[in-house]
Amino acid sequence: MSCDFLALAVPGVQKLSPYVPGKPVDELARELNLDPAGIVKLASNENPLGPSPKALEAIRAELGDITRYPDGSGYALKAKLSERFGLNPAQITLGNGSNDVLDLIARAWLAPGLNAVFSQYAFAVYPISTQATGAEGRAVPAKDHGHDLEAMLAAIDANTRVVFVANPNNPTGTWFGPQALESFLSRVPQNVLVVLDEAYIEFAEGSELPNGLEYLARYPNLIVTRTLCKAYGLAGLRVGYAASSPQVADVLNRVRQPFNVNSLALVAACAALDDAEYLAEGRRVNAAGMAQLEAGLAALGLKWIPSKGNFLAVDFGCDAAPINQGLLERGVIVRPVAGYGMPTFLRVSIGTQAENARFLAALAQVLDRG
Amino acid sequence: MSCDFLALAVPGVQKLSPYVPGKPVDELARELNLDPAGIVKLASNENPLGPSPKALEAIRAELGDITRYPDGSGYALKAKLSERFGLNPAQITLGNGSNDVLDLIARAWLAPGLNAVFSQYAFAVYPISTQATGAEGRAVPAKDHGHDLEAMLAAIDANTRVVFVANPNNPTGTWFGPQALESFLSRVPQNVLVVLDEAYIEFAEGSELPNGLEYLARYPNLIVTRTLCKAYGLAGLRVGYAASSPQVADVLNRVRQPFNVNSLALVAACAALDDAEYLAEGRRVNAAGMAQLEAGLAALGLKWIPSKGNFLAVDFGCDAAPINQGLLERGVIVRPVAGYGMPTFLRVSIGTQAENARFLAALAQVLDRG
Repeated sequence: MSCDFLALAVPGVQKLSPYVPGKPVDELARELNLDPAGIVKLASNENPLGPSPKALEAIRAELGDITRYPDGSGYALKAKLSERFGLNPAQITLGNGSNDVLDLIARAWLAPGLNAVFSQYAFAVYPISTQATGAEGRAVPAKDHGHDLEAMLAAIDANTRVVFVANPNNPTGTWFGPQALESFLSRVPQNVLVVLDEAYIEFAEGSELPNGLEYLARYPNLIVTRTLCKAYGLAGLRVGYAASSPQVADVLNRVRQPFNVNSLALVAACAALDDAEYLAEGRRVNAAGMAQLEAGLAALGLKWIPSKGNFLAVDFGCDAAPINQGLLERGVIVRPVAGYGMPTFLRVSIGTQAENARFLAALAQVLDRG
Repeated sequence: MSCDFLALAVPGVQKLSPYVPGKPVDELARELNLDPAGIVKLASNENPLGPSPKALEAIRAELGDITRYPDGSGYALKAKLSERFGLNPAQITLGNGSNDVLDLIARAWLAPGLNAVFSQYAFAVYPISTQATGAEGRAVPAKDHGHDLEAMLAAIDANTRVVFVANPNNPTGTWFGPQALESFLSRVPQNVLVVLDEAYIEFAEGSELPNGLEYLARYPNLIVTRTLCKAYGLAGLRVGYAASSPQVADVLNRVRQPFNVNSLALVAACAALDDAEYLAEGRRVNAAGMAQLEAGLAALGLKWIPSKGNFLAVDFGCDAAPINQGLLERGVIVRPVAGYGMPTFLRVSIGTQAENARFLAALAQVLDRG
């Protein structure tokens, strides 16, 4: 007779529901018997440009060494990040995507009896990683789909160890400015870690968003997380990082698996950080695609949440599941966000001009307005 | 004034010492101003053949898609593993190296007040992952440097959730046979998970070691962990897996980060599993290198622990640190194992014939017997 190993798992893990990722192209192709080449995926906020040529070159040069373990210290990538962003390597924790560093933060500072504060409609990994530790996750109601920073401050109590904030936020695309960040940081108790998730910050550069790294010197309780998976185009390789005080980085590096970042990701990340042209082109394509989608959605009489990311959350004002199904049948994958408590919305990533047009045309058909 | 975030970390994490990996070639080159091309690294039990050509081909074919997230379900790799090893995909948990699955097991079933049992001189990740959860790690004294399975059984109590056993064991190379495994499994309480770490099993194939996968059907509390990082030559890419009952796999997959295995690792692993020639050549090179090293060590009058892995633990009968330093100065990196409580030993990975010869020559010089 077999034992119940779910019942034996630690309480936080027993209650975990796994993260639901965007549907992979191959999976949809299998399910609906479609040609993968004809499928458009605008579901995971990926860079539509294809890889940075510099990153590819760096990967090809490293291929002969994949039998060797990665450099567990990430020496070269930390040096590159330090040079680029004015950091000290001792402030950096590398992660297998920024998901990994978010998870490390939860493991290091959360446990049963403690809590983490985050916003309603925020990245699913905050509640999942919190839950896995057995700590309480406090989802603070959003304000106009964005973070209500005042309410989040009010939710902090003596057992709060971590506050997760995202700027811009995923899946809503909402954001806050430098004054709001400063006001928030200055009032969070100094024994509470503020995790400022800037996974999408590169798409907002030049706008009114603050650069979290500039606040590290004054706020030793601040951790800024960033990723190379979005604007730098390395989602498949998994690489992100946290910038913090050296002490916080030391704690995170103790919990980190020694080879959490693979060797191709390490070299590709260094190269991508040097590919200014790729980053600039990605921003141009994103800005143009945002305008294209906004015009197309407006023409269809639809509403959406203004976004500073590389995606838009579209509000259909009714259950969005049938619309999502209609899009899937037409070979267009977007992201349902009912799991985020937004059942009337679909999140669409900004793609190339052709992909955006394909989405808009399919949407018009599904809505029978085409 | 800054807060002490080490003191605020959960108790298990506060006491963590990070894993100390093998010294990377570039690091030694920087430290001693040596030419990296002239350095021989026999420190991390890596495959000395260079990558599988089939794996490289699969990686090259996937490079254009690295802007896309990996398939979080690992559909193709699980299908390949299932076909190869007679498993059901629902029994498999993929990991960012087998380090990742070991860590997932600890997170899922260990917590303060509980304990995990493992052997003295076993893989450092067992105590580290246990410690990170705040559970007690029970290191059972080894017998002739190998697992004392009877003593490990005796160490299990009502608060034991996990027993880690490795066959063959790293860093000692020791092993046990089918009868010992059967006898052990039949007596471990059925509510205690037995983690059978077979990271090096491919090097022992055809010998008297049991194949852990064959015991899964009869022991629902058994988890077999394996890796593609050793015999399959994918250390740099990070990919391993656990095979278990579907329920245990379901729990592990809840804790698993959704994109823990990168997309190049997924395709390379599928290809490497199909490259029978590469695996066979690796075994031949390993057997020949083992004989070469044993002969060379015997000629130097040295002793070592007989090993079924791709490495040997050599006993110098005195503090091995100066010998290690002498080897480093000669551009040869092996692994000090003082951190494993074996200060008189060095662990040397089996390399190519030329690498092994280089190690033996440097060692003879260091010992002043050359």
